[in-house]
Amino acid sequence: MRVTPEDLIHPVVLCGGSGTRLWPASRESFPKQFIPLVEPDRSSFQATVARLGDPALFARATVVTNSESRFIVAEQIARIGVGADIVLEPQRRDSAAAVAVAALHAAARAPGALVLILAADHAIGDTPAFLAAVREAALGARAGAVMTLGLRPTAPATAYGYIQPGEPVEGAGAARRVERFHEKPDAARAAGLIAEGALWNSGYFLFRADVMLEELRTHAPQVLAAATEALAAATRDLDFVRLDPDAFARAPQISIDYAVMERTTRAGVLPVSFPWSDIGTWDALWDASDRDRDGNAVRGRAVLRGTRDSLVHVEGEALTTVVGLEGVVVVTTPDAVLVTARDAAGEVKELVAALRAAGEPEADAHRRIYRPWGSYERIDLGTRFQVKRITVKPGGRLSLQKHHHRAEHWIVVKGTAEVTVDDVVKLVHENEAAYLPIGCVHRLANPGKIPLELIEVQVGSYTGEDDIIRIEDVYGR
Amino acid sequence: MRVTPEDLIHPVVLCGGSGTRLWPASRESFPKQFIPLVEPDRSSFQATVARLGDPALFARATVVTNSESRFIVAEQIARIGVGADIVLEPQRRDSAAAVAVAALHAAARAPGALVLILAADHAIGDTPAFLAAVREAALGARAGAVMTLGLRPTAPATAYGYIQPGEPVEGAGAARRVERFHEKPDAARAAGLIAEGALWNSGYFLFRADVMLEELRTHAPQVLAAATEALAAATRDLDFVRLDPDAFARAPQISIDYAVMERTTRAGVLPVSFPWSDIGTWDALWDASDRDRDGNAVRGRAVLRGTRDSLVHVEGEALTTVVGLEGVVVVTTPDAVLVTARDAAGEVKELVAALRAAGEPEADAHRRIYRPWGSYERIDLGTRFQVKRITVKPGGRLSLQKHHHRAEHWIVVKGTAEVTVDDVVKLVHENEAAYLPIGCVHRLANPGKIPLELIEVQVGSYTGEDDIIRIEDVYGR
Repeated sequence: MRVTPEDLIHPVVLCGGSGTRLWPASRESFPKQFIPLVEPDRSSFQATVARLGDPALFARATVVTNSESRFIVAEQIARIGVGADIVLEPQRRDSAAAVAVAALHAAARAPGALVLILAADHAIGDTPAFLAAVREAALGARAGAVMTLGLRPTAPATAYGYIQPGEPVEGAGAARRVERFHEKPDAARAAGLIAEGALWNSGYFLFRADVMLEELRTHAPQVLAAATEALAAATRDLDFVRLDPDAFARAPQISIDYAVMERTTRAGVLPVSFPWSDIGTWDALWDASDRDRDGNAVRGRAVLRGTRDSLVHVEGEALTTVVGLEGVVVVTTPDAVLVTARDAAGEVKELVAALRAAGEPEADAHRRIYRPWGSYERIDLGTRFQVKRITVKPGGRLSLQKHHHRAEHWIVVKGTAEVTVDDVVKLVHENEAAYLPIGCVHRLANPGKIPLELIEVQVGSYTGEDDIIRIEDVYGR
Repeated sequence: MRVTPEDLIHPVVLCGGSGTRLWPASRESFPKQFIPLVEPDRSSFQATVARLGDPALFARATVVTNSESRFIVAEQIARIGVGADIVLEPQRRDSAAAVAVAALHAAARAPGALVLILAADHAIGDTPAFLAAVREAALGARAGAVMTLGLRPTAPATAYGYIQPGEPVEGAGAARRVERFHEKPDAARAAGLIAEGALWNSGYFLFRADVMLEELRTHAPQVLAAATEALAAATRDLDFVRLDPDAFARAPQISIDYAVMERTTRAGVLPVSFPWSDIGTWDALWDASDRDRDGNAVRGRAVLRGTRDSLVHVEGEALTTVVGLEGVVVVTTPDAVLVTARDAAGEVKELVAALRAAGEPEADAHRRIYRPWGSYERIDLGTRFQVKRITVKPGGRLSLQKHHHRAEHWIVVKGTAEVTVDDVVKLVHENEAAYLPIGCVHRLANPGKIPLELIEVQVGSYTGEDDIIRIEDVYGR
């Protein structure tokens, strides 16, 4: 029997969050879904996409993200050897618009296609249980319900919304109608909700594309109209589908929960019970992590003494030590350090807002900056100079550019560089240098098969990032 | 009236400690007495020497230190514009040998000279009160007592020894005979000692050189013999007096407290009450520091939220944040971070011992390494390359050297370098580069009037510090 698009589930991964509660590891420029937090070698985004690998169950995945994260998304899915369509939102418009686009995108392939909406930043401890739940929820979705997965609570959590299940959905296994959605409660109310049989709202949705489009038409017609136009006028940009910015901007900024789920009569929920976390805070990450017999979850170069029930997360080379503390979070990165009580970890979002208001660059930007051609990282800064380590992927090409206020010295330490200086193009090999006088038109590219690494020493009266005049760029920047 | 050496007090600053309890700011390679900890702009060593600036009261100071710290000592006293004799101990031999050398050194100028022994790593909050105490203690010393300063306790501290004062020293103001010395007590015993009128043992000594030499002859003749020979056979090394290593090695390793103070009948103590701390731990530094209204002592680039009674000490550029904690110590440096409960700060010494046993280089070595010609700091390290920022003082000259396994690229980012490559000597100016092929004989010097800064990119199969063949060195290394 041939599998048709109608038989498969079309997964859509929403990947636009900024995750400031997990600062300083997670920042606007490289948010938490792209960082290995729970697993040592892959990000939660990669784990999410990898979970959708069974071609007998899932169609090719769609990732909805923003323009800033597009090269990270492309690189991370390439690394795990999975193909996906990448749809770019020109602005943040919350989840209703993204779900509308997802439904339209799937309906174009098959009107009755099943669509599964997933968050990119959740941890799931038992993939077979998750897949079994998706299969079972699909019964409800095929029967016309807009399904969610409702986790059986393991604690009176105040960080999640709750769902009160009602009558069974006929002919759909364990699926139930949603009786009511509850906002995040306080601890006492959470205990009461659990006693009444309420479930955690996971934020996963599973529905027939045509059903969601009907519901949007009824409950959120402006969202649907904007999404329809934004997709119809979308452009291809390299490997990305870029939604039309003007049309998309007309979508009201509203979540799918408010726009549809709390209004529709077709909401359903499947009670499930695999290990799950939205990794909403450092404390939640501690909770979701493997811990040693002292209750510590440690990642990176750290030494603990007399310390219990703590999370230590080290990025970079600095040796991090913790002595005589209980229930703390210590996060060190090359340019920012966070030390907090685990039970105050929810305040990190306000901390980051305060840092941003004070103009601290570390609030949003990482030391290592990702670009379509590779990445760079400042390694030293003086009054009239700056030193960067630059990595260029095989085939990567920086823009053709010039600077008004600085000269640059490039020393290749690995691989081979193709260096353009005004009219001359030459190859520069390991342990060779190139000099770029102030004002020259230049370009760096990696013509080789291995990554190119070089040290750039900038010398001049001003070394800011905005002293770049781009003359030509293969990445359309 | 002409002031003679007999009239003046000859200060001797003992400067050989390693201060591992204040790791990671203080390390073997750059110990706490040289770091600005209590004051923002000068180290406790500098503050100690500056306190001795009145030429009507003090003779030229002598600093007793070890070979590793000699260039730091020389530079720090030059920076505060003070001259001092620098005596180098070839090995650590505890305080008795150092005091013996100090007494011999002063006696050579005048047998009855008064000698004041000071620690380089104490904080004193009221210099006029300290000087008044020294003047008053000098009365006891002239009368033949081996005086100490005894601080009136402000808390039942367990980190200090105690002194029980006895009868007054006749004709010597408030000076008293020492009734008894007490080892560091537990908290209950400390309270009892305070009730009995005991004083904190500050570790300052003031005596006539001839009196101390008599006491050493009686109570520690081996120490005196070794010190006498070590000084007699001392050599001049640049501006330093280097004690003879073989002779000095024969001195028993014993403190002046055990060797003399607890045995002599001539011990005296002056009760004093200026603000004082030996800055023995991070907790002690918190206690001695100015604190804001939340009780926090903060140094460097730090942001605190909902945090009380804590010490945050930041070296380098990393932004350090602390949220929702009480009574903690957070110390961040470019290559090591310490987070501890204030009341566990005493365990840092054991932490450092454990790091050392595990072979962690950060246990003893700082990222920035001081050399007689300036300093260097690794700013990046890869598998086949290393990048350093090198600073050379005006007039500084590195050794003539070569490497077997690496080539070097030097890019001058400030000042002017004189670069020798094999037979060629040339000047390299800001924004110019020099290339040093593997195996070439080369030297770097700063012929200018301002510090020279350059970025060194090393490329090769091995970039360890031990791949240096020194052919010639002006600093006798």
